[in-house]
Amino acid sequence: MITIDIEPLTQDAFAPFGDVLAIGLGDAVPINQGRCTRHHNLSQPDILNGSTGISLFQSELQTLPYVLTMMERHPLGSQAFVPMCDAGFLVIVAPDEGGRPALPRAFMTAAFQGVSYHRNIWHGVLTPLSGSGMFCVIDRISQQDTGGENLEEFTFGTPYHVIGNA
Amino acid sequence: MITIDIEPLTQDAFAPFGDVLAIGLGDAVPINQGRCTRHHNLSQPDILNGSTGISLFQSELQTLPYVLTMMERHPLGSQAFVPMCDAGFLVIVAPDEGGRPALPRAFMTAAFQGVSYHRNIWHGVLTPLSGSGMFCVIDRISQQDTGGENLEEFTFGTPYHVIGNA
Repeated sequence: MITIDIEPLTQDAFAPFGDVLAIGLGDAVPINQGRCTRHHNLSQPDILNGSTGISLFQSELQTLPYVLTMMERHPLGSQAFVPMCDAGFLVIVAPDEGGRPALPRAFMTAAFQGVSYHRNIWHGVLTPLSGSGMFCVIDRISQQDTGGENLEEFTFGTPYHVIGNA
Repeated sequence: MITIDIEPLTQDAFAPFGDVLAIGLGDAVPINQGRCTRHHNLSQPDILNGSTGISLFQSELQTLPYVLTMMERHPLGSQAFVPMCDAGFLVIVAPDEGGRPALPRAFMTAAFQGVSYHRNIWHGVLTPLSGSGMFCVIDRISQQDTGGENLEEFTFGTPYHVIGNA
């Protein structure tokens, strides 16, 4: 059994996999007579052969140790996840190695942080550990007349065990 | 002094102004072996002459009665607001009448609801009444080589007072 330790989410560590959506990154622009701060343009959707849409995901909560049996990737579009609660969530990604995920890495977000996976990056399915399990998702919407498969899945022969403190 | 009563947010009432982002609307698609439900494609960004970006807004909380002194609109892009907490927020919109906002309407969202203002719809600035004041915003990012003014503001001669129970 291979275990994966959870790391805190940082922009540098996550850069090969996607964007961190958090205050402190990007330009902080005061708006609305100073009553609001805009943390500007933290990520831009990267969508091929379709359009960008906003959806909501309602996920069950997961527990640690988390058994990682499979990962997926979306060749045609980035995918952003933003929690609609103040709980962090578990984020699992992996570099590609010959068309399959290499050793995964697991990150725990802080409160008020989201992530956007770059297009075609291997990632685990949504794994909130606490909070509401409600997320806003910005990703590719396929259109009737545009084809292309946007979901690739890989199931591990031996699952990984993700461990740590949430 | 003209007062505006707060209405509950419904898709029908809000349809002239934008999209409601909430479960119960759109197709509910089970994903991730049934552990998650995707409430699909509740809104698509409508962006002219620029690109779609994801930003975070950190707003101060407001109180009722809320004094509405001005409204704004964005001719070049829709603008979606999704709370990163489980609190509802106040949403103020108005039909256009000869290039200025007509009588505004005020809506209170329920928990886990967002809104996306259609392009060029008059709306108030962000007015959370409770919760974290943190929002994910999906709107137009201007590009260096593409021009066009995307902000139009209108200040009322006599402010409106928005009243009700939050």
